[in-house]
Amino acid sequence: MIVAMQEQASEEQIRQVMERLIALGFEVHRSTGAVQTVLGAVGARPEFDVRDIEVLAGVGEVHRISSPYKLVARSFRPEGTVVKFANGVSIGGNEIVIMAGPCSVESKDQIFSVAESVSRAGAKVLRGGAFKPRSSPYSFQGMGEDALKLMRQAGDKFGLLVISEVMEISQIPLMLPYVDIFQVGARNMQNFNLLRELGKERKPVLLKRGIAATIEELLLSAEYLMAGGNYEIILCERGIRTFETYTRNTMDISAIPIVKKLSHLPMLADPSHGTGRRDKVSPMGRAAIAAGADGLLVEVHNSPDQAQSDGAQSLYPEQFEKLMGELRLIAPAVGRKLA
Amino acid sequence: MIVAMQEQASEEQIRQVMERLIALGFEVHRSTGAVQTVLGAVGARPEFDVRDIEVLAGVGEVHRISSPYKLVARSFRPEGTVVKFANGVSIGGNEIVIMAGPCSVESKDQIFSVAESVSRAGAKVLRGGAFKPRSSPYSFQGMGEDALKLMRQAGDKFGLLVISEVMEISQIPLMLPYVDIFQVGARNMQNFNLLRELGKERKPVLLKRGIAATIEELLLSAEYLMAGGNYEIILCERGIRTFETYTRNTMDISAIPIVKKLSHLPMLADPSHGTGRRDKVSPMGRAAIAAGADGLLVEVHNSPDQAQSDGAQSLYPEQFEKLMGELRLIAPAVGRKLA
Amino acid sequence: MIVAMQEQASEEQIRQVMERLIALGFEVHRSTGAVQTVLGAVGARPEFDVRDIEVLAGVGEVHRISSPYKLVARSFRPEGTVVKFANGVSIGGNEIVIMAGPCSVESKDQIFSVAESVSRAGAKVLRGGAFKPRSSPYSFQGMGEDALKLMRQAGDKFGLLVISEVMEISQIPLMLPYVDIFQVGARNMQNFNLLRELGKERKPVLLKRGIAATIEELLLSAEYLMAGGNYEIILCERGIRTFETYTRNTMDISAIPIVKKLSHLPMLADPSHGTGRRDKVSPMGRAAIAAGADGLLVEVHNSPDQAQSDGAQSLYPEQFEKLMGELRLIAPAVGRKLA
Amino acid sequence: MIVAMQEQASEEQIRQVMERLIALGFEVHRSTGAVQTVLGAVGARPEFDVRDIEVLAGVGEVHRISSPYKLVARSFRPEGTVVKFANGVSIGGNEIVIMAGPCSVESKDQIFSVAESVSRAGAKVLRGGAFKPRSSPYSFQGMGEDALKLMRQAGDKFGLLVISEVMEISQIPLMLPYVDIFQVGARNMQNFNLLRELGKERKPVLLKRGIAATIEELLLSAEYLMAGGNYEIILCERGIRTFETYTRNTMDISAIPIVKKLSHLPMLADPSHGTGRRDKVSPMGRAAIAAGADGLLVEVHNSPDQAQSDGAQSLYPEQFEKLMGELRLIAPAVGRKLA
Repeated sequence: MIVAMQEQASEEQIRQVMERLIALGFEVHRSTGAVQTVLGAVGARPEFDVRDIEVLAGVGEVHRISSPYKLVARSFRPEGTVVKFANGVSIGGNEIVIMAGPCSVESKDQIFSVAESVSRAGAKVLRGGAFKPRSSPYSFQGMGEDALKLMRQAGDKFGLLVISEVMEISQIPLMLPYVDIFQVGARNMQNFNLLRELGKERKPVLLKRGIAATIEELLLSAEYLMAGGNYEIILCERGIRTFETYTRNTMDISAIPIVKKLSHLPMLADPSHGTGRRDKVSPMGRAAIAAGADGLLVEVHNSPDQAQSDGAQSLYPEQFEKLMGELRLIAPAVGRKLA
Repeated sequence: MIVAMQEQASEEQIRQVMERLIALGFEVHRSTGAVQTVLGAVGARPEFDVRDIEVLAGVGEVHRISSPYKLVARSFRPEGTVVKFANGVSIGGNEIVIMAGPCSVESKDQIFSVAESVSRAGAKVLRGGAFKPRSSPYSFQGMGEDALKLMRQAGDKFGLLVISEVMEISQIPLMLPYVDIFQVGARNMQNFNLLRELGKERKPVLLKRGIAATIEELLLSAEYLMAGGNYEIILCERGIRTFETYTRNTMDISAIPIVKKLSHLPMLADPSHGTGRRDKVSPMGRAAIAAGADGLLVEVHNSPDQAQSDGAQSLYPEQFEKLMGELRLIAPAVGRKLA
Repeated sequence: MIVAMQEQASEEQIRQVMERLIALGFEVHRSTGAVQTVLGAVGARPEFDVRDIEVLAGVGEVHRISSPYKLVARSFRPEGTVVKFANGVSIGGNEIVIMAGPCSVESKDQIFSVAESVSRAGAKVLRGGAFKPRSSPYSFQGMGEDALKLMRQAGDKFGLLVISEVMEISQIPLMLPYVDIFQVGARNMQNFNLLRELGKERKPVLLKRGIAATIEELLLSAEYLMAGGNYEIILCERGIRTFETYTRNTMDISAIPIVKKLSHLPMLADPSHGTGRRDKVSPMGRAAIAAGADGLLVEVHNSPDQAQSDGAQSLYPEQFEKLMGELRLIAPAVGRKLA
Repeated sequence: MIVAMQEQASEEQIRQVMERLIALGFEVHRSTGAVQTVLGAVGARPEFDVRDIEVLAGVGEVHRISSPYKLVARSFRPEGTVVKFANGVSIGGNEIVIMAGPCSVESKDQIFSVAESVSRAGAKVLRGGAFKPRSSPYSFQGMGEDALKLMRQAGDKFGLLVISEVMEISQIPLMLPYVDIFQVGARNMQNFNLLRELGKERKPVLLKRGIAATIEELLLSAEYLMAGGNYEIILCERGIRTFETYTRNTMDISAIPIVKKLSHLPMLADPSHGTGRRDKVSPMGRAAIAAGADGLLVEVHNSPDQAQSDGAQSLYPEQFEKLMGELRLIAPAVGRKLA
């Protein structure tokens, strides 16, 4: 941490700041310049709140030097993390992995029909929601455990891994037998109670960026999971809130190359939630892969017009197939392949 | 809902949109103009997703006419909601109500000392955190039920109501005997599972705006609570995320007069979280009251330098007393009083 | 325009709103529903300020139905605008067009060296700044007309069209003999005096989106140019301001497919200004093309470390060549080609 | 400037960064720690682009220590700047100064009527627009020099200073004889050509914050004016763009105490443009004063319903008078007075 004193800071103020830093367990180096004094403080706990120094008299600015995350940093595992599954699928490796499926599981027919379509088109993971807490208590709330069973059956039948969103600690044991990857949604990115429990599991977690979360905050939440012992974390961009109103959120494609540089973790993108409009899903899915994403999470429905939720952002099976063809052309441009 | 067809929409497209609307349970009125056709659709369920119409061929724009909330709308209770407590305190009435206390309850000495100070200065409600899920698993995690007991004792001794944050459904029964108001934090504003359970209680809830939430979304979350039967809801502005980096969040003071016009619910402001800096708390607290807020939520600590959390944004007791004096001067300018 | 009256609006209020609308030149249709009254108003001038109706007593919401732009709308020219140049280059057609060059023209050697490199790699247009109003009066301010002369010579020698930024009306006649395309920078997107004069010229204009401009505002500025009679407008995304601090701006890739749907105008992207970091330029350039952009504007410098401005976001010639190769692989995925 | 090298940076990389810094004219101090090496670089030119160091191999983070502005910093004039006028009015002193008037000057009757009203209510400065470049070429474009003459006459008659917006360099000599303060609008906050010319004048300038400008950028633009020799600068907050859609912009009230701490310059607020809605002007005007603003800029029109522009955000004279009464009650709470 670097503490730049104000130009007019008194010797007494400088001394008090130094004493405070030492009391907090820092080792302090003082550099007295012609214009101002700068203090270097080494050895802070990661959770140290820099504002505690900023409010001291005579302090100009405080800069944290060492990044507040360690385990997720690229330097921790320069070669990159590859999350491997029993069926041979790897996320974060040379192959681009596409996860596809409906927003909500609605029936056996529906999930089997979608699973067949996306599997044939080249998807490797089946996505689908089992729990749907909706803003209206009268809306469809999801099929719960029945949805998980159906996803598992469909996944097994069509050779797909299964991912579904976990929203509460109580759902973890319920979901464990059915899913291959836990998904943590944007609203729960900073639900530290939930992250703590998922950190104890030995099953991959896909962590979505919150709509108001900075990239650093996304990495800090991943750090929290890894600190618990779960090292198989997959990150996912899904749009941030900006002043632009044409789309619900602005999908931050630049987060993809940034995360790939800062961290060793795989980074996916969700163009369905990132845009909210069916006709924007394919362009943004292509853009994400072209920017270096390790895969996509895409909503596909066998009959979007009849979907219980998010039909407007779900691709028709034939649109998904077309998108997969386009991605196969793009993959070589980023030195990747898509089965 | 108004559906404006594209200028070049065909008669067949218009017919299909009308049929779709009727199938969804709407009554449809068609208005054929020289330039374009506009369809008025009446009778939708509140949770209807307008995007389902926007994606149909030939549709230009879709506008929802009736507001998606009813119970929280000013028209539902034009005279305004006043939340009344047994000890005579009212929130939303003529008197401005100040809630003050530490970020976290740390010890009996601390909470009793702060309670005495803020009570003497004119606060009516004691705030304090019992559960503190932190980004680091090694940080102080809160005193839990012990904190609640101490707050109740301190509140009773110094004539203060008690408010504390509830983060999980499992904490509701634990907190019920101790608190007078449940606080829902910004991160849980759209935790619909939690809101559903709090909607069943008959105890006031203070609901904070999420850092990426629009005013409409804040009102929709309040609607969710009221739909459950709990009509004693208090809203609170605490800062939204913007591109400005000098402060953690930008406190949206304009949300105060906007909410007061759109809704009958009391509206408070939290200048401590809204600014994150001690020296900005009083200016923004004054601004909120001058803009028409029904009260404030302020962090005060007997020894901010030693605080376990958020010391940098906590006022010293003497600063709080000074702020209260300033607010007493401002109150008459908005036709209010402060005891 | 649709005016939804408040549910409790009185008959007198409704009558007054109707009279006001008629006085403003609208034709008014009234629809009296069980819950509320809705007024349809047809025939407004495009510059009508909807807030003038919103502030009337009894009015709930006002929605503008017809889009405020006409000439730039896709429906005006469904087949799309292709801007054609004498040397056979077309922007907006099947071929992707790359514009490349240094931030500022610094010397004859520099601009000739860069022009040769980018031409060999496949660029069709040479970009370069002649006027550089900088935040410090002591910084390099650009070479002015000499820069334009050098660009013209370099462009002619290496078969490149020339684009440069115009910042003031007085620069238009000065630049006319040298450039093939006028560039309007993000800060001038709403400089209506400048747009008015450029609208009178018969030379293509590349209009960049302002960092706080919505897509609709970008289209309205293009409408202003077209209303002046200049129909050869090219749009360009270059990043908007968001809360994310890792990059200067967040490049809004989704604006590309959105503009391509709403408008017939060609849409380019500038990944250099959109990211501000050399190592993010190629990923975001690829993403833009994959999302459907008609071309790119890229900063390339023969010696970025010595650049007088924006060296940190300028590609080395060999990086640009590599990017061009990647784009050639991506182009077929969007049904395009790159020479 | 502090350069924190990456933890895995090689000795060779560190050496190259040091050489580069020295070549750029910095004096470099090296601090080699157990985990990483930190370089302190002293003596940069203010316009130095930190990205030039960030892109070097082995560099982790770069922090600018000394603020990039000097003349506007509070430390340059700790007692604060007071802009004094011949008629005894002072801006930035103990007295709060209110500037009021119509968006555009429309006629002699109008400006004299408004001037009389606002003068009687206690305003000290008459505001009004002479040049109105509008998004539609068919809209009212302002009365030009006639407007300036009328404002001067009205100001002289009713004892008011005159402020009007300057949009182009060519308008400066035209406006000089008529106005007491030049206003620079939000769109021109970074029009450095215009700022350079205004810096040469010896007449106060009111500089508005751009809707996408950070507080630091606002201060840098003021620095630019002061560097030109014009020390009588007044700053003004008028709303920034955020995701909230209920208001056009979100008025950043917290910018007021922040600027007052960072700088010695007077800071005003414009609640008319900051909210865009008449019924929000008074609450936000009160909030700005309560937060410590040195004054307000308020739109008042004798007949807002007939206004040629911005009628929806203009107060009626009686509303303005009521606001002035409220501000008189608030002023003592911030140790100020209002005549």
